[in-house]
Amino acid sequence: MKTRVTVWNEYRHEKLHEEIRKVYPQGIHAVLKEFLSKENDFTVRTATLDDPEHGLTEAVLAETDVLLWWGHMAHLEVSDAVVERVYQRVLDGMGLIVLHSGHASKIFKKLCGSNSQQLKWRELGEKERIWVIEPTHPIADGLPEFIEIPQEEMYGEVFGIPTPETLLFISWFEGGEVFRSGCCYTRGLGKVFYFRPGHEAFPVYRQSDIQRVIVNAVRWAKPANGPKPTKGNYPPLEPIGDGRTSLHPELHKNKA
Amino acid sequence: MKTRVTVWNEYRHEKLHEEIRKVYPQGIHAVLKEFLSKENDFTVRTATLDDPEHGLTEAVLAETDVLLWWGHMAHLEVSDAVVERVYQRVLDGMGLIVLHSGHASKIFKKLCGSNSQQLKWRELGEKERIWVIEPTHPIADGLPEFIEIPQEEMYGEVFGIPTPETLLFISWFEGGEVFRSGCCYTRGLGKVFYFRPGHEAFPVYRQSDIQRVIVNAVRWAKPANGPKPTKGNYPPLEPIGDGRTSLHPELHKNKA
Amino acid sequence: MKTRVTVWNEYRHEKLHEEIRKVYPQGIHAVLKEFLSKENDFTVRTATLDDPEHGLTEAVLAETDVLLWWGHMAHLEVSDAVVERVYQRVLDGMGLIVLHSGHASKIFKKLCGSNSQQLKWRELGEKERIWVIEPTHPIADGLPEFIEIPQEEMYGEVFGIPTPETLLFISWFEGGEVFRSGCCYTRGLGKVFYFRPGHEAFPVYRQSDIQRVIVNAVRWAKPANGPKPTKGNYPPLEPIGDGRTSLHPELHKNKA
Amino acid sequence: MKTRVTVWNEYRHEKLHEEIRKVYPQGIHAVLKEFLSKENDFTVRTATLDDPEHGLTEAVLAETDVLLWWGHMAHLEVSDAVVERVYQRVLDGMGLIVLHSGHASKIFKKLCGSNSQQLKWRELGEKERIWVIEPTHPIADGLPEFIEIPQEEMYGEVFGIPTPETLLFISWFEGGEVFRSGCCYTRGLGKVFYFRPGHEAFPVYRQSDIQRVIVNAVRWAKPANGPKPTKGNYPPLEPIGDGRTSLHPELHKNKA
Repeated sequence: MKTRVTVWNEYRHEKLHEEIRKVYPQGIHAVLKEFLSKENDFTVRTATLDDPEHGLTEAVLAETDVLLWWGHMAHLEVSDAVVERVYQRVLDGMGLIVLHSGHASKIFKKLCGSNSQQLKWRELGEKERIWVIEPTHPIADGLPEFIEIPQEEMYGEVFGIPTPETLLFISWFEGGEVFRSGCCYTRGLGKVFYFRPGHEAFPVYRQSDIQRVIVNAVRWAKPANGPKPTKGNYPPLEPIGDGRTSLHPELHKNKA
Repeated sequence: MKTRVTVWNEYRHEKLHEEIRKVYPQGIHAVLKEFLSKENDFTVRTATLDDPEHGLTEAVLAETDVLLWWGHMAHLEVSDAVVERVYQRVLDGMGLIVLHSGHASKIFKKLCGSNSQQLKWRELGEKERIWVIEPTHPIADGLPEFIEIPQEEMYGEVFGIPTPETLLFISWFEGGEVFRSGCCYTRGLGKVFYFRPGHEAFPVYRQSDIQRVIVNAVRWAKPANGPKPTKGNYPPLEPIGDGRTSLHPELHKNKA
Repeated sequence: MKTRVTVWNEYRHEKLHEEIRKVYPQGIHAVLKEFLSKENDFTVRTATLDDPEHGLTEAVLAETDVLLWWGHMAHLEVSDAVVERVYQRVLDGMGLIVLHSGHASKIFKKLCGSNSQQLKWRELGEKERIWVIEPTHPIADGLPEFIEIPQEEMYGEVFGIPTPETLLFISWFEGGEVFRSGCCYTRGLGKVFYFRPGHEAFPVYRQSDIQRVIVNAVRWAKPANGPKPTKGNYPPLEPIGDGRTSLHPELHKNKA
Repeated sequence: MKTRVTVWNEYRHEKLHEEIRKVYPQGIHAVLKEFLSKENDFTVRTATLDDPEHGLTEAVLAETDVLLWWGHMAHLEVSDAVVERVYQRVLDGMGLIVLHSGHASKIFKKLCGSNSQQLKWRELGEKERIWVIEPTHPIADGLPEFIEIPQEEMYGEVFGIPTPETLLFISWFEGGEVFRSGCCYTRGLGKVFYFRPGHEAFPVYRQSDIQRVIVNAVRWAKPANGPKPTKGNYPPLEPIGDGRTSLHPELHKNKA
């Protein structure tokens, strides 16, 4: 069965700013969809902020194995209801790939449990070099030792994320900073990958190595086929000492 | 300077249920305060759900280095405003120690970024044995190899938490389950420790080794004296190639 | 291309002790080979301690993607040269799956960098229940919430391993102990998985869920296709301030 | 009780090369000892390669709480017996702080269990900037956001270490590389900290922030007062089903 990918893009810069439209004439999501669609094991659709329910209806999410998220200038316009919906789907197993300024999105902050919005930034179009520090990870498949981006926005530490379960990439910036640019998390049954590059003003998502990372991340993040954990009141698997029963069951009726 | 500890207790079971009142006549918080107050480097106060603002006013939190949290039957009565206030204080450096059924509190779920409410449970008053698996951690100071609790509520895996940064304790239960019972996290500048034991129906917080864990955890969780990370638009530390300036500064006025 | 698996077994208990021979008449390696060979993407061979060079010649290792290791009573008979050879192959990318009492093997201790030999044990044939605590990991694919083994040797904490990069399984034992039974590591370009069960006196490797874990672990541990890190004296990628050259190159000729 | 620190220095460059002697006239160990001795809670001694038993006799190690290790050009001259002795002391609880080119020492490689010798290097005396990414860790106490070193040897990724339990520092280098410069590990009961800076040709250990890191690391690495794990044949804490006894005790006489 194919992995069903939904590319979500805020899609505002491209409509509002001519210089951005030159870089991504049909929107960032169009470029992401284009290269993802070349993979035989993926089916890809897109959704944007201005679609009804931001394009992320229950039906769409139910048919999504991995969701990509690009947002920047309109994080606060994303409805809490949709954020909650995406959140529950991640906990239930959907993969989520958060790109670039998606670090400050409601959904990533909610999944981090910390102020992932906090970082340094600078928009001078300087050089970035992304070093791979975990070369055996599936997301590093087929990559060179580093990926060079001629012009990018700088993001600098301290990045207010929880320590990643796996830190894959560290970025070097021309202006003197470093950044944790590839970060893996698990939340419930869902996998989450944060990938730093992709400022709207530069054609970063047209670089083949960047595309490779995103393709690999989709394969890594797709839902697993492991045990579905049960929860709630659970009968003992072994006999309890003296055959006790609950001491005050009336107190715990609604506990889960 | 002394570490300023605030013990927060929901304080409902003890008022509503006579059998619980027998175990903790003045409330769980009173017992926690009592043994914490014996430490010369701590000052301790308490706060409960039914106090104004749940006893967690801006002023109280501003004077709190480490907050303990015990809640169970009334998680949903904790106001979102107070949860947000505690959350910000944790990100700013206050330590938080979440006890037992605090796993399902609003504040712990918010800090986890996942469904920490999910677990198995059973209330038969069975035996628990807490094994120390990281004996060099500060929270294991002075402990034996394991702590035995004669009667406890069972909590069983899968526990819906993010993988702990450090897993200190694993519990064995008489009925056949295991549980990650001592879990360390960092969130922003704050340290968070989840410690499983402490069902209201059993005098668990009167056991000296359990008290030792909580005292150690307060010392571990108190605010650090490290660098305060700066954020936002950051001038380059090194010269950028051709002396470029921002490509479209007007787009980024409110970015943080 | 198929994954080339080599199953290494000490193969002494089965030859020396009739009761063990009843459980594994052709040796533990034969049973491991049998179920692994049913996977279409694997090719499987075996090697044992009493083979020349323990069956682990340079040629065999060069053709091995994943090595399984079962040893117990004769760890010290494994030659240091072969251990070094296996060690280098792991650093170069070969996967290694260490089974049961292989915890005390020379190769696992060398890869751990600590006294992985340290643990508690007891051989009463008691019940073990292996709980899956990371249900989304590839090694948990297709598993139930727990695997029950009717009779096993007990291994108890503290297990003298480095904290696993990923802790997959926690065992519950009838006699009152817990154990970290599924532990993932990366060493150089190689992946290492320790899997606890498999005492020679019980037919543990005939249980389908145990087989499933081992099959999954082979797929997880096979060599990755990531960047091959370079090392040694490295020319600058960016101009250094004043065009400096080495201050005392003669001191560093042999450094790597 | 004071923390007993032993500073071990290879002490060859300073004797052999006049330019190095200008930087550290009495040896690197003398400078390390000098600033460590200013801490009221430390007592400090030194030892060097050319002392009998490299100055690390059983008696000296028995009186050492934390050992610092600086070596570079003569790693292979360190006797295996002394390495084994240090290794056992670390597993028993002694802290170890490995400085700069100590990454390639026998002792660090043995404790890593991997090829920590592997990295890129370049000796042009370029600028290094060490960013603190875990500001709440005890080793970051009192530090600024970054430490700048005007001239240093470059070390670049991939560094062949196991993923650190805690990654504290990431270095930026003028020539375009990054490096994991502050790495925490636990091995047995001992804590290990790798700290990158300190090439012999530059007065790095005279910088106050670098000194602060090392002082903090000594406090962090000193032996803990946790449980001493027991091992070996362990009687059951709970009754086993049918009162079984060992199935073949004769096979397990020497097992530990």
